[in-house]
Amino acid sequence: MAGKEKTPIILEDRITAELNIDPLTEKHFLKLVEPDLSDNRGDVDRVRDALSGKYGPIAVPRDIMNGVSLACRQGNWEVTATVGSLQNGFGLVDIQPGDTSSLHLGAAVDIGTTTVVAYLVDMSTGRILNTAADYNGQIKFGEDILTRIYLAGEPDGLEALRQSVLQTLNGIFFRLTEGVAFKPRDISAAAIGANSTMIHLLLGLDPSRICLAPYISVVNAPGVLGAAEIGLEINPLAPVYCLPGVGSYVGGDVLGGVLVSNMYRNDELAFLVDIGTNGEMVLGNRDWLVACAGAAGPALEGGVVRSGMRAEPGAIWQVRIDQQTRGVEYRTIGDLPPVGICGSGLIDCLAEMFLCGIIDRAGKFKGGLEQFVVVPAAETPAGEDIVVTQTDINNLMRTKGAVNAALELLLESVGCGLEQIERFYAAGAFGQYLDLESSITIGLYPDLPREKMVRLGNSSGEGARQVLLSSEKRKDIETIAKNITYFELNANQTFMNKFVSSKFLPHTNMDYFPTVKARLAARGMLK
Amino acid sequence: MAGKEKTPIILEDRITAELNIDPLTEKHFLKLVEPDLSDNRGDVDRVRDALSGKYGPIAVPRDIMNGVSLACRQGNWEVTATVGSLQNGFGLVDIQPGDTSSLHLGAAVDIGTTTVVAYLVDMSTGRILNTAADYNGQIKFGEDILTRIYLAGEPDGLEALRQSVLQTLNGIFFRLTEGVAFKPRDISAAAIGANSTMIHLLLGLDPSRICLAPYISVVNAPGVLGAAEIGLEINPLAPVYCLPGVGSYVGGDVLGGVLVSNMYRNDELAFLVDIGTNGEMVLGNRDWLVACAGAAGPALEGGVVRSGMRAEPGAIWQVRIDQQTRGVEYRTIGDLPPVGICGSGLIDCLAEMFLCGIIDRAGKFKGGLEQFVVVPAAETPAGEDIVVTQTDINNLMRTKGAVNAALELLLESVGCGLEQIERFYAAGAFGQYLDLESSITIGLYPDLPREKMVRLGNSSGEGARQVLLSSEKRKDIETIAKNITYFELNANQTFMNKFVSSKFLPHTNMDYFPTVKARLAARGMLK
Repeated sequence: MAGKEKTPIILEDRITAELNIDPLTEKHFLKLVEPDLSDNRGDVDRVRDALSGKYGPIAVPRDIMNGVSLACRQGNWEVTATVGSLQNGFGLVDIQPGDTSSLHLGAAVDIGTTTVVAYLVDMSTGRILNTAADYNGQIKFGEDILTRIYLAGEPDGLEALRQSVLQTLNGIFFRLTEGVAFKPRDISAAAIGANSTMIHLLLGLDPSRICLAPYISVVNAPGVLGAAEIGLEINPLAPVYCLPGVGSYVGGDVLGGVLVSNMYRNDELAFLVDIGTNGEMVLGNRDWLVACAGAAGPALEGGVVRSGMRAEPGAIWQVRIDQQTRGVEYRTIGDLPPVGICGSGLIDCLAEMFLCGIIDRAGKFKGGLEQFVVVPAAETPAGEDIVVTQTDINNLMRTKGAVNAALELLLESVGCGLEQIERFYAAGAFGQYLDLESSITIGLYPDLPREKMVRLGNSSGEGARQVLLSSEKRKDIETIAKNITYFELNANQTFMNKFVSSKFLPHTNMDYFPTVKARLAARGMLK
Repeated sequence: MAGKEKTPIILEDRITAELNIDPLTEKHFLKLVEPDLSDNRGDVDRVRDALSGKYGPIAVPRDIMNGVSLACRQGNWEVTATVGSLQNGFGLVDIQPGDTSSLHLGAAVDIGTTTVVAYLVDMSTGRILNTAADYNGQIKFGEDILTRIYLAGEPDGLEALRQSVLQTLNGIFFRLTEGVAFKPRDISAAAIGANSTMIHLLLGLDPSRICLAPYISVVNAPGVLGAAEIGLEINPLAPVYCLPGVGSYVGGDVLGGVLVSNMYRNDELAFLVDIGTNGEMVLGNRDWLVACAGAAGPALEGGVVRSGMRAEPGAIWQVRIDQQTRGVEYRTIGDLPPVGICGSGLIDCLAEMFLCGIIDRAGKFKGGLEQFVVVPAAETPAGEDIVVTQTDINNLMRTKGAVNAALELLLESVGCGLEQIERFYAAGAFGQYLDLESSITIGLYPDLPREKMVRLGNSSGEGARQVLLSSEKRKDIETIAKNITYFELNANQTFMNKFVSSKFLPHTNMDYFPTVKARLAARGMLK
């Protein structure tokens, strides 16, 4: 990924210290009474009895029953039972001879439209033991979400999409445990943060109504399912918790950000933005939360932009333009020869072109320019110019306009002004790498004092880690999902009006962006 | 089956009237609020919310989620949800458009070593709508339990046994719903009564330790499993409750009898016997229950007796011998030409031979006889004598001796005498067809006033029907299983001593059998 040198602002250790660890699965070392003629309870009954004090009646699936008998005898009636929190109670997930309670593994997963990341989590300490990432295998069917939703309606399309993300996930689980003493089978619990469409495609659920009014998903809060039922090649009985969403366009990935930011527990008014295919945002504090998604469009997706690409080696992720010479300095992922521009590079480009007067406040090229050459053909391995076109800019202007319009609508709905926002969170994996100043310059992020602006990093994955470790956090995110007020903007006329009028850089009302105004003034670019 | 003209003593209607119907699955007609832009809950979330008041958080498996969306739309937001009691809470089992709450089907199943019977139950009224039976497909691997346990230890043996009983069951489910408007898929719950070995083989559990000291099963109380997990071809999400047992030799089939008899709720001292491969018995009342199994051996199984056969068409099920002429009157199943003798016929034979002085009190042929010809070769289709041999008699004497010895041991263990027994229950399918007087004559049943003796019919199947319909009955049978005191006789020296001394007809102490004594006296057969 881009910008490997950047450190997420939210540090794992600090958060873990605040978690009351009470994980999705628990391991218990049991010293059982050995059966004899006067105590002829069955092996499963014996283990159930030993656990009933804490859990009440637990489900013991057929598939594990013979294993219970084996483990009891191999361990000479000393066994370690793994018990999982299921949707409606508790169930036996694993049983091993002897005391294995010190090895207790979970997987926290973020399924993005483009990238899938998983963290191997020590369920006792909360520490991340290993990380693995890969592109979402669904990319081969289409880079953007709408293409995949369309494909899911074709014969066998949904199952093909499901299998391809499963293949990605199972490959990641394999790599997470590669070269160590355990196997994917030893992962006894998982939590997944993802947008609603990704959850639908993972679970084989029909996503067609997500993009049709009134935009109703099959399920917003799947809750706890079983690994085998989903197709995850970890312990087949592992409970798998999907972070709940609040609507077709504000999914568990975004609520993961709300959870990780703690904005739902604080007094201060906070604004969280997760920029991806859509710009999803949440405004609020401990007393109330409102959310919406601006249909940002695919401006930041590799396949749409003329010279766009995913954040892969060779992608330009940082751009600086000299105001005088218009010479470009850029950095690529891996410092390799430039292949194309990824999302963060594109936002840098737009900001720099604006600051240098190459485009005007409406995002139009000045002086009859038709495109801006970031890297001339001679310097690229492909021998083609890497450019930003007017179309690319128009797409990006729409994205930023959608975010502006949605924020204004959210603020108006609760009767607040932009100046009242006390904290800003950039959520999601993409937000982790966006240049803060460039994002403010183009008006994608609000122009707040920088010390109030926090990057959450991969808050979907971190949210997954937290719910994996804490039943309190699971309750919290369920409560957030239930209580949040969701504005559906797809059919909202006020939003459309604001969207149309949000077509200026950084904003129609420049006073909302004082630092940008000051920079432009310093450059002599304000009349 | 034998004696089709006989009516079970326990009448379905009377018992159903006493049941507080609260079935394993419940159907609820739901009028849902139609979603719109201001209520964007997912379809599954909407259904969950509608059910949460009654059930709290219910499990909704992945496999049913798309079905929820479809049913909501097909039924125009009026749907019928079927909710099941799972081991640890509740789960969605089915969802159908419109109001289908009047069609609610369950299956009550008795899996015997020889015969499998299932009742199609209307879950709203408790009525039996249809019955189907078949031989247990495992018979082809061996008629008796020990052969099957042995085979289960061979490679793939356990799975072959499992598949063969599944095939039997699924065939029965098909026939239960043949020619009617519904399908096996419409059966939304099942309950199963069976001995411990049959439960192990059905669930694919290793039965090897059932017959090795200290005789520990993998599980005595499997609780609720899922139909798909077991392999039953009814609604794959149907909860399937297996009646709990109390030991390797006193299974759910016997506890079904305890449940059906109500002996666990009454003050009177009751004695329940279930004669099959083993003679299983329970003694007690509302305050205490003791149980044991006499290893009766295969005396009553078709394959062991020289002219033995299963209770199939052509089997001699009733025998009367004229004391003077020794002429035999017999009846066969279906009134067909005689092929062999089934268990009830064999017991009749033994009693009649004893009453006619053909055998002595020790069960030995008098006057140098080597075998008794029940039907001469000329009268049989096969052209072979149908006989009872000394070996057949010896086997049967062992069975009856085991029952006598076990009963004495149970009585001694609680400090009671035979005369204190206030009620006798003949449980199980086999007990339904045994001739009461013959069974008393040979000492298999105690010699009590006949009005105190009750046949329970197929109490395993009836027990399954009751737990299917009543959560109170499920709690009751779990409590019975937990509180019953089980005596393991396999390694009990007192039992062995009593067994050896129980070798007389009807009993070593003739005073225990006053009516038999009187009949013998009337026939001039007492010295």
